Amino acid sequence: MTTSLLSRHAHTTLTEQLAGRFAERIHQRLLAPGSRLPSVRECARRHGVSTHTVVAAYDQLLAMGLVEARRQRGFFVRETRQPNTPAAHPEPASPSRPTAPVSATALARGMFQLPGARPMPGLGTLPVEWLDLPMMARALRRVASGSQLEALTLRYGEPAGDSRLRQALSIWLAEIGVTASATQIVTTSGAIQALDLLTRTLLRPGDTVLVDEPGWSVEYARLAALGMRMLPVPRGDEGPDLAAMQRMIEAQPPADRPRLYVTVPVLHNPTGASLSLGHAHRLLQLAQSHDFHIVEDDACGALAAPHLPRLSALDGLQRTAYVSSFSKVLAPQWRVGYFAASPALVERAIDTKLLTNLTTPALCEQAIAHCLENGLLRRHIERVTHRLDAARARSVRAAEAAGFRFAAPPRGLFGWVDVGMDTERLSHTMLDDGWFLAPGTLFFATPRPTPLMRINFATTQDPRFWQAVASAVRGA
Amino acid sequence: MTTSLLSRHAHTTLTEQLAGRFAERIHQRLLAPGSRLPSVRECARRHGVSTHTVVAAYDQLLAMGLVEARRQRGFFVRETRQPNTPAAHPEPASPSRPTAPVSATALARGMFQLPGARPMPGLGTLPVEWLDLPMMARALRRVASGSQLEALTLRYGEPAGDSRLRQALSIWLAEIGVTASATQIVTTSGAIQALDLLTRTLLRPGDTVLVDEPGWSVEYARLAALGMRMLPVPRGDEGPDLAAMQRMIEAQPPADRPRLYVTVPVLHNPTGASLSLGHAHRLLQLAQSHDFHIVEDDACGALAAPHLPRLSALDGLQRTAYVSSFSKVLAPQWRVGYFAASPALVERAIDTKLLTNLTTPALCEQAIAHCLENGLLRRHIERVTHRLDAARARSVRAAEAAGFRFAAPPRGLFGWVDVGMDTERLSHTMLDDGWFLAPGTLFFATPRPTPLMRINFATTQDPRFWQAVASAVRGA
Repeated sequence: MTTSLLSRHAHTTLTEQLAGRFAERIHQRLLAPGSRLPSVRECARRHGVSTHTVVAAYDQLLAMGLVEARRQRGFFVRETRQPNTPAAHPEPASPSRPTAPVSATALARGMFQLPGARPMPGLGTLPVEWLDLPMMARALRRVASGSQLEALTLRYGEPAGDSRLRQALSIWLAEIGVTASATQIVTTSGAIQALDLLTRTLLRPGDTVLVDEPGWSVEYARLAALGMRMLPVPRGDEGPDLAAMQRMIEAQPPADRPRLYVTVPVLHNPTGASLSLGHAHRLLQLAQSHDFHIVEDDACGALAAPHLPRLSALDGLQRTAYVSSFSKVLAPQWRVGYFAASPALVERAIDTKLLTNLTTPALCEQAIAHCLENGLLRRHIERVTHRLDAARARSVRAAEAAGFRFAAPPRGLFGWVDVGMDTERLSHTMLDDGWFLAPGTLFFATPRPTPLMRINFATTQDPRFWQAVASAVRGA
Repeated sequence: MTTSLLSRHAHTTLTEQLAGRFAERIHQRLLAPGSRLPSVRECARRHGVSTHTVVAAYDQLLAMGLVEARRQRGFFVRETRQPNTPAAHPEPASPSRPTAPVSATALARGMFQLPGARPMPGLGTLPVEWLDLPMMARALRRVASGSQLEALTLRYGEPAGDSRLRQALSIWLAEIGVTASATQIVTTSGAIQALDLLTRTLLRPGDTVLVDEPGWSVEYARLAALGMRMLPVPRGDEGPDLAAMQRMIEAQPPADRPRLYVTVPVLHNPTGASLSLGHAHRLLQLAQSHDFHIVEDDACGALAAPHLPRLSALDGLQRTAYVSSFSKVLAPQWRVGYFAASPALVERAIDTKLLTNLTTPALCEQAIAHCLENGLLRRHIERVTHRLDAARARSVRAAEAAGFRFAAPPRGLFGWVDVGMDTERLSHTMLDDGWFLAPGTLFFATPRPTPLMRINFATTQDPRFWQAVASAVRGA
């Protein structure tokens, strides 16, 4: 997303240019359904045009059916549906009104915009240039040129996933204390499909799920789309607020007690916090006494110190399932993720995998196995975490120099920063200058205005970003 | 699955060998939960052992918790669950009791058994040796060695899927009369994920879905697992029984009227029947007047004559969505499928894809695009359909010589044959001799004993298979 100022010398009028730019963002979901357009006055000031031009542009958007006017409140992005589409179900059966799936995907879609002139402070992954293409290319060539290519192409492969990768993962997991044989591991299309398969195996629509708040909006939206009821548990620096969690559970009628807690214990997204050992132990006790499962999402786990306690290590995969992937550190496009669980749960989850996806491509799985077996992944992770430590130090210095403070101690890939103004409004302003932000509202199960936002330490090292934020905040 | 007779000279007793063999099949789901073990007398006769040995073996299985005895009815395979697994939900909210997901996956899992001494008459795909490994290897090498490898490895790729493949598909679809621009096409992990994404986008749990009966058991199980209510519509040689369909729809209370019909119009699985043009037209009129969507599953479409009418061609993707894949004809393990739909539905289904899988691996997608662009796929399909025509003729001759008749005119890959005895019982008997069958009960939404079974024309050309069936039927 590059800066594109309105031009007085173009073939289209300023009104058309302004309406066109909003229409494009609404189409790309950078302006999510339900979000508010800037006030007429603010928009006029920001773009250096008259309020008359803005009103005319908003009227065009209204006529195009892209926005709706709400009395006394302004203009909001509409959900657009074709007339022949059967009516949507407006009310998900959830106690907290979850983020609608469509607005949660704004963040995910932002990841797929073509790279612009500026780094993306809201990026959810490591920058592409931090990854190691030659290493992956060699691994792929080795697998594709071998005699196993027939099995990797023409046969359906094993339902649980490539056995060579599962064997390598069994050894890999042992180093963070998670004991799982290869038969307890199932490969998936990224961590997100692992979460989806486990949820669909353990729950059925209408069941109650505990989630972290703040947390990952795509996870909220996924659960809401499955018809689950969410109970958001406040997440502090040591872990979830266990007293609040217990009260929430006990406030539910017995039939509606949660059956599952989906959580990111280590390098939590967005705060970067990790569970303390004592907290992990007490959480498992609570899970035991209230009989719920825990799905441990460790998608960023490769970037974390191995000594940080994983719930699945403590619990021995009795009522926990462990989820991770290689999308963050090796090859996002190959979509290789996995989970480890008890033999009984694995057996049922393989059925879900068969019913919804059959198998996963073993070609990429074996190439990843090659990287694990030869210590390539380990050395790559050492390089990446070293680089991330340096980037984080620079980003934090620049943020503090510009007057910002972090709401949680800076760790891992993500920072959770307080800018002192509503970050959704800030994100619209900064988008005009080509900065793609991840405003805090995307990390709450119930969207709310918040001065918090998530930044990526790898893409916010340049002091000019922080100065741009400071300037936008002052100008707001 | 090879024949392994019980041995009187082994280190284990006959009882242990017999119990071990049943235990192995239960574990592999070749004996699905809920299915009945042979009677003691029949089992003794079949294996040439005393009834005492069989009773002792069944007692061992009972003690292992693998089977349960039902008074006056015999021994049945149990569903095994770990004690710490929260209780399963026993009752799906469906008017017809659908096949439990676990038993439907028996068929899918059968596909993944290691190849045995005999061809698999129940196989759901083309035999591996009919596919073209050198062609796929060249396509993969070309893509993997090009400058695009960075984008195919390190970037997340487009949410809708690789644009080169979508462009090639747009041209490909035009030849069967389906007009879809590249932006109306979304790539998926096989046809099965396309079906899953579309269902999850169009429906929510508890909604009613029309399905073909007989039909594909994995589809029934997938819908049941999503909490959908199924209305099975009898499928005849010209298409679904439209009068019955209309009566079923009108018998539902307005709130429970079906929102979707999932069907295989061309080369229907298992009967091989294709919709007539008039039938297709009247079906679309019914969909219009009762306002439901149609998902057209054309996974075997590449094997069908292009003139056979696709619903999506008639309807112009207004209320139809078209699903297909390259798993049958090119590379099952690469898991490249896709769907085409209206722009509005595509937009929503991409959100579902993002929420549940993020993206699909573009590496394999580009290699498939290469096969489409260069006419390699077309020539390969010509060779395969020519070979299939010859195989079908031989299989039908051998079947008729052995005294069997087809319940539907033989076409495409699958035959629907009447053997005059319950095919589930037959499948157990023939498994002992190493033949893996697809008994008819797997193709009904409500499992029932049936003398029908599905055979694969490519793997049933040998008259010895049909003679073995005839002999097993006579001996039953």
